[in-house]
Amino acid sequence: MQTLQTAAVIGAGVIGNGWIARLLLNGVDVNVFDPSPDAPKHADKVINNAERAYTKLLSVSLPQKGQLSFKSSVAEASANADIIIEAVPERLDMKQSVYREIESSASTEAIIASSTSGILPTELQAELEHPERLMVAHPFNPVYLLPLAEMVGGEKTSAAAIEKASNMLESIGMFPLHIKKEIPAFIADRLLESVWREALWLVNDGVATTEEIDDAIRYGFGLRWAQMGLFETYRLAGGEAGMRHFISQFGPCLEWPWTHLMDVPEFTEELVDKVVNQSDEQSGMHSIRALEQKRDDNLVEILKVLKDNRWGAGNALQSFESKLLEKAEKFNFDDLDLNQLVETFKTTIPQKWADYNGHMNEAHYLECFTKATDKIMTIVGVDAQYIANGDSYFTVETHIRHLDEVLVGEAVKASTQVLFGGGKKLQVFHFLHHEDGRLLATGEHMLIHVNLESRAATVPNDMVCSRIDRIFQAHQTLPSPDGVGRAVGDKH
Amino acid sequence: MQTLQTAAVIGAGVIGNGWIARLLLNGVDVNVFDPSPDAPKHADKVINNAERAYTKLLSVSLPQKGQLSFKSSVAEASANADIIIEAVPERLDMKQSVYREIESSASTEAIIASSTSGILPTELQAELEHPERLMVAHPFNPVYLLPLAEMVGGEKTSAAAIEKASNMLESIGMFPLHIKKEIPAFIADRLLESVWREALWLVNDGVATTEEIDDAIRYGFGLRWAQMGLFETYRLAGGEAGMRHFISQFGPCLEWPWTHLMDVPEFTEELVDKVVNQSDEQSGMHSIRALEQKRDDNLVEILKVLKDNRWGAGNALQSFESKLLEKAEKFNFDDLDLNQLVETFKTTIPQKWADYNGHMNEAHYLECFTKATDKIMTIVGVDAQYIANGDSYFTVETHIRHLDEVLVGEAVKASTQVLFGGGKKLQVFHFLHHEDGRLLATGEHMLIHVNLESRAATVPNDMVCSRIDRIFQAHQTLPSPDGVGRAVGDKH
Repeated sequence: MQTLQTAAVIGAGVIGNGWIARLLLNGVDVNVFDPSPDAPKHADKVINNAERAYTKLLSVSLPQKGQLSFKSSVAEASANADIIIEAVPERLDMKQSVYREIESSASTEAIIASSTSGILPTELQAELEHPERLMVAHPFNPVYLLPLAEMVGGEKTSAAAIEKASNMLESIGMFPLHIKKEIPAFIADRLLESVWREALWLVNDGVATTEEIDDAIRYGFGLRWAQMGLFETYRLAGGEAGMRHFISQFGPCLEWPWTHLMDVPEFTEELVDKVVNQSDEQSGMHSIRALEQKRDDNLVEILKVLKDNRWGAGNALQSFESKLLEKAEKFNFDDLDLNQLVETFKTTIPQKWADYNGHMNEAHYLECFTKATDKIMTIVGVDAQYIANGDSYFTVETHIRHLDEVLVGEAVKASTQVLFGGGKKLQVFHFLHHEDGRLLATGEHMLIHVNLESRAATVPNDMVCSRIDRIFQAHQTLPSPDGVGRAVGDKH
Repeated sequence: MQTLQTAAVIGAGVIGNGWIARLLLNGVDVNVFDPSPDAPKHADKVINNAERAYTKLLSVSLPQKGQLSFKSSVAEASANADIIIEAVPERLDMKQSVYREIESSASTEAIIASSTSGILPTELQAELEHPERLMVAHPFNPVYLLPLAEMVGGEKTSAAAIEKASNMLESIGMFPLHIKKEIPAFIADRLLESVWREALWLVNDGVATTEEIDDAIRYGFGLRWAQMGLFETYRLAGGEAGMRHFISQFGPCLEWPWTHLMDVPEFTEELVDKVVNQSDEQSGMHSIRALEQKRDDNLVEILKVLKDNRWGAGNALQSFESKLLEKAEKFNFDDLDLNQLVETFKTTIPQKWADYNGHMNEAHYLECFTKATDKIMTIVGVDAQYIANGDSYFTVETHIRHLDEVLVGEAVKASTQVLFGGGKKLQVFHFLHHEDGRLLATGEHMLIHVNLESRAATVPNDMVCSRIDRIFQAHQTLPSPDGVGRAVGDKH
C-alpha cells in the first residue's frame, strides 16, 4: 500500500476542512495553510463532527490521530508532504499561484491534488515544473463521510501519479473514480448543475418552493440514487425487458422537451432573495450544526445499511474497515494486567437502542455483553483467523441482572471477570457500568468451545487454553461478584 | 379519514403493478384491466416482491389483504371504485379513450388519477364529463416502497378532489406532494430528465460508462439526496454563511457553462447500443429480480434508518405505521385461549442478525424474547396508552438457555408461559422454536411494574392485575418448563 504519512491542505473552507478531518482521523499528519485567523476554530468544528460520525460508523478502531499544524505559508505547509491538497476558491490564477509556491518547497515526488469542482487539470498544470504529478481529486461534502473522489488527469499527468494518489485515497477510506476523459466539471457536477439549473427555474417561475423540490427528491428518486444511481435504476424501470425497453419508452420524451433546455436563469436579486427566503423557511429552524449532525447521522446509518447489504458505497466502507483492521496495532497478551478485571467494551448509547420507556432497551444489555464476550475472545486468541480455521466458542447460557437504567447519549463500559476456564468450558461475568459509576447490569455467561464443522464440543488449542488458564488463575484471587450463580427470582 | 375500499387500476405495467401491490397490501380491493394475457402473472411477481419488502419494513401488522380481480374491460374494472388509477402508455389519445370508458361506468364521485410522467392534467381532462375529479398522481418505482406521489390538478380539477385523493394516498402510506402550478413533467421528472440528458451525453462522448456515472452518483451526492435533496444540501455546503454564500460561490458557474445546455443527444442506434451494452456489462450479471430484491432491501433499511432518525421519508413511514396501528384489529382479551401457551412473536432471521459463526448472534435471542415480552405487555393491557399514562414494566432479570442454532432466512416463533403474576411482579418463560420444531432457546424473565415518574415499584391497575391473574391461574395447570429456576452452570 502507498505510504501516506503527511499531507498538506491549502485552503481550509468547507471542503478543505473535510479533507483535514478525514486525514487526521486516519492517522495522517496534516499541515494546513489558510490566511484566515479563524481557520483553526472552523477546522476544529469539522474535526469534532467527523469524530462524532466515525464513532458511530466504524466497527473497528481508528489509528492514533495525526498531528494538525497550521503553517504561515503555502510553502511551509507543503514541505515534506506526500500529498498536497489544494482547496482554494475556483479561480485559475489563484490556484496557479498556489502551485508555484507549492513547487518552491515540495518534494518533486509529492502529489498535487486539486479539489476544483470543474477547472480542467490541463489548465491547472500548465505552468508547473513537474506537471505530471498534478491531478484533480474532486471530493464531496462532507468529505470525511462520502467516499467519492473524482480523479481526473490533465494532458501531462502521468498514469503512475493517478495510481499513486488513488492508492493514498483508498487508504483513507475513499472511492477514487478515475475519469478517463478530461471534461469541465467532470461527471457529478455536470449532473448536479443540470438539476440545479432546472430547480432554479422551478423556483423562479413559482412552480415549487425549495422545500417542495427537496421533498420531490428525498421522498422519491433520491432514495434510489443512494444505492443504484441512474442507469441501473432505469434498467429496473424497464422491467424484465431491461434497458432497451426503457429507452424506447422514455427516450422520445427528451424531444418534447420537458426542461428549460435553452436558458439559464439570471441570478437577479429577486431570484436570490426567493431562494434564500424559501431555504430559511424550510430549514431555518435548525442551526447549521444541527443539520450537519442530522445529515451525518443519516449518512452513517445509510452507509452501514449498504455495508450490511454488501452494496454500493457500503463496499467502500467494508474495504475501509478491512484496511483499518490491517493497520490496527496488534494486541499483545503479555501487556494485559491479569490482576484486575479486563476492560472489554465501551460505547455511548445510540438513539436506536432506546425503548418506549425512554431508556436503553433490555435486548441491548445483552448486545453490550456480547461485544464484551467478543473482546474476551480476541484477547484469548479466538480471533477472525482462529474462527476461519474452524473453531469458535458458542454461548450456551446467559443470566442478566438489569439493575439500573441508562439513557440515550450516556456512556457505558463493560469489564469482565473469568469465573471458570478449562477444557471445553469458559464462564465469564461482565459488569456494565455507567460513566458516573453506577452498576447498570451484570451478565453471567457459559460458553462452550465447538468445532464449526462437526458442531461438537471440543478443547481449544494450546495457546487459547493457556491464556484462559492464566486469566482464570489470576481472577480467582478477585472477590466473587455479587449475583454469581443466581437463578431468576432468587431472593437477594 | 377518507374511505378507500375499492380501487381500479387500468394498465398493469411496472407502475400499475406497483400500485396494485401497495393497494392490496393495505387491504384495498383492486379491480384491474390490462389487455395482456400475462398481466396476472406479472402482477403476482410484483405483489410477492412487495410482501417480501413489507415484512421487513413494518413493525406493525398490515390489515387483511385486499381482493385482486382482473376484469375484461376498463368499464368493468372502474365500476364501484373509489379511485381509478390510469397507468397506460404516455399517449394522450389512448388516455382520453380510457377516460371515456371509465366515465361510462364509474360513479361521478370516483377519483380518476393518472400516473402520467408528464402530460398536463388540463389536457387529460379536456373531454371528461366530470373533469373536476381528474388529476395527476405521479408515483415512483417501486410504487409499493417509495412514498412520493406528485399531485397535480388541471384547470378544471377541484381542490376538494385533490384533498380527497391525497387523503386516500396517505392512508396507504404515501407522501402526496401537491404541486400548485401545472407544468409538463411536474418536478421530479424535470430534474431527472436534466440529469438523464447530461448522462447520455457523457456516454455518447465516451467521457464515462454507465457504471462510472452510477458510481459518481451513489458513492457521492446520491447519499445526500436520499435524505435532504438539493437545496438543504447546498445550504450546508455554504457552511455557517448558508444559502446566500453558496449561491455567490457556485452561482456564477452556471454561466460557464458546464453542461450541454443547448443540445439534446440524438438516439442513434449507436448511442442506444452503447447504453444497452454498458448497462449489460455493469448489471447483466444480476437478474432483474435479484436487482429488484437488492434495491428493495436497501430501500427498506434506508427508510428504517430515516424513521429511527425521525427525518425525511422516514416520517412518511412513521405516519404510515401509525395509520396501520389505528386500523389494526383491536385485540380482544376474551378471545385468548388461556389453556395453552401464548403465541408472542414470529420472524424470519435477517442477514444483519448473523454473527461471524454464520448463525443468529446471541444478542438477538434476547431481542426475540424482548419482542415476546412486549406482546405479553400488550395482551395484559400495558400498551402505548398505558405507558403514556405513566406506568410500565421493567425487566430486572433474564436467564437464557441457548440450545440450538438458527441460520439467516429461517423462520422462528416464540410462545410464552406466565410462571408467576401478582402484585408488582410478573415472571414469564419464553420458548423460541424453529419452524422445523426444534427448541432453539428459552428465556426466563422477571419483570417489575414501575411508575415512570417516581421510578418506584408499584401495583398495576385492576384490569392489568386481573388479566395477568387469569393467565397465571390457567398456566399453572401447564407443565413446569424444563430449565425453570436454573442458574448459569447448573448441571442438567
